[in-house]
Amino acid sequence: MTISSTTLNDVNIEAVGALISAVSDDATKADTQWRATVTWLGGFRTEAKIRSFDPIASDEPAGLGGTDTAPNPVEQVLAALGNCLAVGYAANATARGIAIDALRIDISGPVDLHTFLGLREGHAGFSSVQATVHLASPADAADIEALHAHVLSTSPVGHTLQAALPVTIQLAG
Amino acid sequence: MTISSTTLNDVNIEAVGALISAVSDDATKADTQWRATVTWLGGFRTEAKIRSFDPIASDEPAGLGGTDTAPNPVEQVLAALGNCLAVGYAANATARGIAIDALRIDISGPVDLHTFLGLREGHAGFSSVQATVHLASPADAADIEALHAHVLSTSPVGHTLQAALPVTIQLAG
Repeated sequence: MTISSTTLNDVNIEAVGALISAVSDDATKADTQWRATVTWLGGFRTEAKIRSFDPIASDEPAGLGGTDTAPNPVEQVLAALGNCLAVGYAANATARGIAIDALRIDISGPVDLHTFLGLREGHAGFSSVQATVHLASPADAADIEALHAHVLSTSPVGHTLQAALPVTIQLAG
Repeated sequence: MTISSTTLNDVNIEAVGALISAVSDDATKADTQWRATVTWLGGFRTEAKIRSFDPIASDEPAGLGGTDTAPNPVEQVLAALGNCLAVGYAANATARGIAIDALRIDISGPVDLHTFLGLREGHAGFSSVQATVHLASPADAADIEALHAHVLSTSPVGHTLQAALPVTIQLAG
């Protein structure tokens, strides 16, 4: 692994290195907890508040009964996957001394609405997700392929979608 | 099922009903495809463009090497789940004639960073996700419980997370 510069790809690789060292010294530092709070605004309009950031707005297209003021939740899942993959390329390219000239990721996936609409029991979500990564870099093709494989093997959102996750949803008492 | 009003909960239940009728008449109308395009902006800053909406910004906290300008991708997954559940309550409460006075959903989940940091092979994502639904409604507790069960059985993002999804990620040729 070559760390060529602290500023390659505008990534603060020293901060990542410091975190790796900290976790190596104390495994509990790898235990992170993440949160969001969603508030219903009427109709299908909602917003998700995360820390002190502007909330992520959500709505549904008119054809699904919404007022189409924001991306809908399944689109937000695709956004999260793409954002996660992009961080993975940026972090690991930088750690390997690979410059990124440009990076775009197209994500798509089908949803059969029968279950959501109550017309059929079964799986209501994406049946699959596809992503195509457009990575412009002066690195060798073999190095890009190795980077790609590493990103896929370490992507938090990618693995979240690929695993059968225990999701517990309860009504407040 | 009672449809008490077209304006209950500010939900356009007629549009949902029209969609259900359309899908009942032509099952292919349930086949929906969703897309997002993510662009890397340097460092760990990215944005996800969905249709014509303002992009969803993404970054990482400073401790993870980012510049902390936006929620990170795993937080966005929690946001998407909460937004989806809220739509589910709004849609199905309205279809059942249940008024919602207020609805807030707290979502959280742990991520062990060892895999993301390259310190261990294995699962890089959430190990579980928890959601607590704060629903204020004049409806009977039994009706709320039935609504809750129905929402869980029909949630696109909930089911996406609970299933082991085939995710295909390829480098553009």
